[in-house]
Amino acid sequence: MPTESIITLYGPGLLGGSLALAIQERMPQVQLRLWARRESAEAGIRARGISADFFTDATAAAQGASLIILCTPVETMAALAEKIVLANLADEGLVTDVGSVKGSVVRALQPFFGARFVGSHPMAGSEKTGIEVARADLFQNAACLLTPTDGTDPQRLRSFWQALGCRVLQMSPDEHDEKVARISHLPHMMAAVTTLAALRTDPSAIACVANGFRDTTRVAAGDPGLWTGIALENRTALRAQLRAASTTLTELLEILDKPDEEDLRRFLTEAKSLRDSVPAVVS
Amino acid sequence: MPTESIITLYGPGLLGGSLALAIQERMPQVQLRLWARRESAEAGIRARGISADFFTDATAAAQGASLIILCTPVETMAALAEKIVLANLADEGLVTDVGSVKGSVVRALQPFFGARFVGSHPMAGSEKTGIEVARADLFQNAACLLTPTDGTDPQRLRSFWQALGCRVLQMSPDEHDEKVARISHLPHMMAAVTTLAALRTDPSAIACVANGFRDTTRVAAGDPGLWTGIALENRTALRAQLRAASTTLTELLEILDKPDEEDLRRFLTEAKSLRDSVPAVVS
Repeated sequence: MPTESIITLYGPGLLGGSLALAIQERMPQVQLRLWARRESAEAGIRARGISADFFTDATAAAQGASLIILCTPVETMAALAEKIVLANLADEGLVTDVGSVKGSVVRALQPFFGARFVGSHPMAGSEKTGIEVARADLFQNAACLLTPTDGTDPQRLRSFWQALGCRVLQMSPDEHDEKVARISHLPHMMAAVTTLAALRTDPSAIACVANGFRDTTRVAAGDPGLWTGIALENRTALRAQLRAASTTLTELLEILDKPDEEDLRRFLTEAKSLRDSVPAVVS
Repeated sequence: MPTESIITLYGPGLLGGSLALAIQERMPQVQLRLWARRESAEAGIRARGISADFFTDATAAAQGASLIILCTPVETMAALAEKIVLANLADEGLVTDVGSVKGSVVRALQPFFGARFVGSHPMAGSEKTGIEVARADLFQNAACLLTPTDGTDPQRLRSFWQALGCRVLQMSPDEHDEKVARISHLPHMMAAVTTLAALRTDPSAIACVANGFRDTTRVAAGDPGLWTGIALENRTALRAQLRAASTTLTELLEILDKPDEEDLRRFLTEAKSLRDSVPAVVS
């Protein structure tokens, strides 16, 4: 179990809010702080029954903290770090983030925090955003990818995430970005592509929609600003994945052009076999 | 309410089995018959508590029926029709099917049954197959697309599907195939493409999977044989949709190649806006 005393969360959205609820529930000894850019965010925090100390001063929020977690959009983290680094953290103070990209984030934040910084990426979320949809069990059974680098020790962070119910995996920031491009950023973009291809030229088809379409495209309802940031930060790995998808789509079109029944069956069987190997809920 | 007396269902899989359960529950006056190719199917039917008369003789199963519903794969329907047409249906006897494709099915079946035949497509299903996963409420709130043609009267069939909880829409067989290519066949193929692109070259990425991937690719676990049949029967409309998806994917890749942040945000915003217009559950 972690022995955190003061935890500061930056950004009370879906992830930050869920972290606050989970920490409050599972680590009652922790003194919780929440930072938001705007004063107006406090009302939403209180409405969810979170009893954290509230800050809009990023430096003050970090004073004496044992664990700092950045839950803001990835492209905003470096500017926050400039403020946080001015504070005196606790002697054993750690800094992490929950961003969906790790290479650029680790490169941006390690110059500020050195070995105090280890990136985290809990694979939990929703197409919905905001503290209104935060929930204490968001991290239960989720994979959490830690990206320690030379000289950093992820052990305490590992215990922290495990205490929230996560299954912790460890990999390099670049390996993270490649894997997450495959299983998160690619599917997100494909959901958007499928939605646009299906409905752009005939929105009336919506009347016929069933659950297959709903599920295949659900994440396309995600926040465009957030996902623009993620896609640009992980552009290299994402482009490689999208090119692979484009090649695979061309392969399918060529099969249908002939048409080659056996090849089509083989194509769909290979996809089914891979999909069947995905556990319903990772535990 | 329909006034069916004898209903014969051909093919006791997910759809046929769910129809049997729903009819048993909602139309207790109906004498239910189930036809399967193999004797061995009867055990599964009984195990689900269905008290229909069981047949493996397709002609005998149709004798005197007021409503016949083909729930077998689309490519098998013409061969069944050859047997069914040898039976004496009730004077007002109707024939329909639940296939995912309507143009080719209507063209194949109308020569046998004339104005007695109207195609149906209840937009309900699952990536799972078989009577084991059948359920009486499968059709509740689902869209059911009817494709009447010249000289046919869909009124009784409309009442039948409404009695099972469906929201009935009416369109021509070709319009059906175009719309369903958009909102069912395209998403299915895109789920397969996404699965293959993401996992073919690195199945180890499965360890990182979250719900975004699970939902976006869920239907890729569907039966490859069934979907090979559907894709080939609706090949023309499906190819047009897949080409649109390929063009849209190229559009996204070009945006990321530059990269153009504003265009990316616009692309994702357009997708979100279309996806947001899809009702959570059509009612």
